[in-house]
Amino acid sequence: MPASEFDLIEAIQRRLPPAGPRVRVGSGDDAAVVETEGEASAVSVDALIEGVHFTLPQFGYRAVGRKGVAMGLSDLAAMGAAAGEAYVALGAPVDCGDEELLELTEGVAEVAAREGITIAGGDLVAAPVLVLSLTAIGYQPPGAPLLTRSGARPGEAVVVTGKLGGAAAALALLSGEAPDPAPELDGTVREALLARQLDPRPRLKPGLALAGAGATAMIDLSDGLGADAGHLARASACGIELDLERLPVAEGVAAVAGGDREGLELAASGGEDLELLATVPAERLSEASAAVSAAGTELTEIGYVTDGGGVTLRLPGGEQLEPRGFDHRRGSRSGSAGASG
Amino acid sequence: MPASEFDLIEAIQRRLPPAGPRVRVGSGDDAAVVETEGEASAVSVDALIEGVHFTLPQFGYRAVGRKGVAMGLSDLAAMGAAAGEAYVALGAPVDCGDEELLELTEGVAEVAAREGITIAGGDLVAAPVLVLSLTAIGYQPPGAPLLTRSGARPGEAVVVTGKLGGAAAALALLSGEAPDPAPELDGTVREALLARQLDPRPRLKPGLALAGAGATAMIDLSDGLGADAGHLARASACGIELDLERLPVAEGVAAVAGGDREGLELAASGGEDLELLATVPAERLSEASAAVSAAGTELTEIGYVTDGGGVTLRLPGGEQLEPRGFDHRRGSRSGSAGASG
Repeated sequence: MPASEFDLIEAIQRRLPPAGPRVRVGSGDDAAVVETEGEASAVSVDALIEGVHFTLPQFGYRAVGRKGVAMGLSDLAAMGAAAGEAYVALGAPVDCGDEELLELTEGVAEVAAREGITIAGGDLVAAPVLVLSLTAIGYQPPGAPLLTRSGARPGEAVVVTGKLGGAAAALALLSGEAPDPAPELDGTVREALLARQLDPRPRLKPGLALAGAGATAMIDLSDGLGADAGHLARASACGIELDLERLPVAEGVAAVAGGDREGLELAASGGEDLELLATVPAERLSEASAAVSAAGTELTEIGYVTDGGGVTLRLPGGEQLEPRGFDHRRGSRSGSAGASG
Repeated sequence: MPASEFDLIEAIQRRLPPAGPRVRVGSGDDAAVVETEGEASAVSVDALIEGVHFTLPQFGYRAVGRKGVAMGLSDLAAMGAAAGEAYVALGAPVDCGDEELLELTEGVAEVAAREGITIAGGDLVAAPVLVLSLTAIGYQPPGAPLLTRSGARPGEAVVVTGKLGGAAAALALLSGEAPDPAPELDGTVREALLARQLDPRPRLKPGLALAGAGATAMIDLSDGLGADAGHLARASACGIELDLERLPVAEGVAAVAGGDREGLELAASGGEDLELLATVPAERLSEASAAVSAAGTELTEIGYVTDGGGVTLRLPGGEQLEPRGFDHRRGSRSGSAGASG
């Protein structure tokens, strides 16, 4: 059991995977020193706050660590960047035990090791609730661009990786908003849903694959499909039409939401799936599909880019769904646009 | 008065200085994109928490913004890095008004403009108290090394920039620990002391000057002279002897502390001065002094590196002062080592 702050920081460092070859100076000095790589780097910061982005004990400390790193890496995935290093600033309540902080560290280390990144530094301070602020730094891969939200052109296909709605369904189960166990929800399916919150997977390889296969704009689904499509449409000064009938809804979402239609709405508005939404010229669609498939997940065409503005979410039968998003500042769902980045 | 989160983020962005030439994509996408510069980069993260690192209304929102950026840049100064970009993750209570957040932004913008850095991205979330997590990224300057804490060698001189104790004296005034106005404390001197908390100055140019003039190890004074000298001695596997009689104590510190001896103790143990402590080979001392003087501040030789371990703080008369530091996690002064980074 570590006694002093110094011992605790050493115990945290011991649990992290070894530093990659680019890192000259890791945690423990005034700043990390990292060798320059690539033409440009991508940098993202995200803060997770207890009671806003996760609750305890529903999540557990290990899952908080996993989610924090995964959310940062998901931003890099959305740029088509190769992940490099992450930095963790942690605010912990005075009554939070060292064991819990080491458990959180193990979640951080688990994702870092799996995704091949170095946790190159951090800060540990006191805070009234658990706070995890994550900085993720990635690099432009050789031969491919870094993708922003702003390159979409009318006529291009809108595609999405993986399955949607799982993170929102998991949140409904964890918060008690949906009955758990939900009727007609298989135990294995329930576990897979919960993992979308407790062990979310950033789509780094699919992001690299899409950037290499001609995608023109990309964003990760953190605010919800409708809101994130809106961010991309606004940045690209175009419109987006999505055909919700084609949405790849995760298994079990309908059971949690209480019906197929409700499941579709949850998949279209729920946030934090960390899947990638991208635009791809029609002639490169099959190449993009094959590349994403080789990167371990599926790619689904769900709509197209128009020269109008805004986002249209078309339900089966032609009715339109109102885009909704997550207001990060107020911690509640609203009709307004979500926070960027 | 901004209404939605989206409007507020736009209002924040409008108050920030324009992006530097290296920044290809600034705030508003999934990640910032920054062109690579130099052989290596230096990255630091720091979290400031209301009630731990500052109090409201004593500080005011503008001062919180200034202090957050200054602390991050001070870490870069301690590496001898040229400052590049900073990223601000902000957690704000739901009842914190947009005006207050814009005031904080103006403090961030003021330091960014003065120090010539770009605020290239951020995150805005809800939190129970005000939280500011700052990531600062700097670059290795041409022709000089990035300095860590670990290069000091026995026989070298220990030097410090500027004046010490001001930040601790200011905290005593702001917290009510010392009477304010203190007897025998001139109004102008009081303002200068308070600025060490409300508008602290990172020593970027002196840091570059020291790295270019042969300094072998460097750290910024954030935990307190005794504690920070201890970090440097430990990292360099050597000892440090400091002669407190030579300490450049800031004007007014003795008046706040209640005596010359008390002022000296405060200057030797108080944190957050953001001055630089460095080791310099004796034969380069005059070159280092001239370079720091050209960078706008003074350099004082206060001791030397030994081949033993630990730190000796020698008071006038030969008595030794026990090194003390700030425990960032517990938010209190203690005998243990402070947090690194």
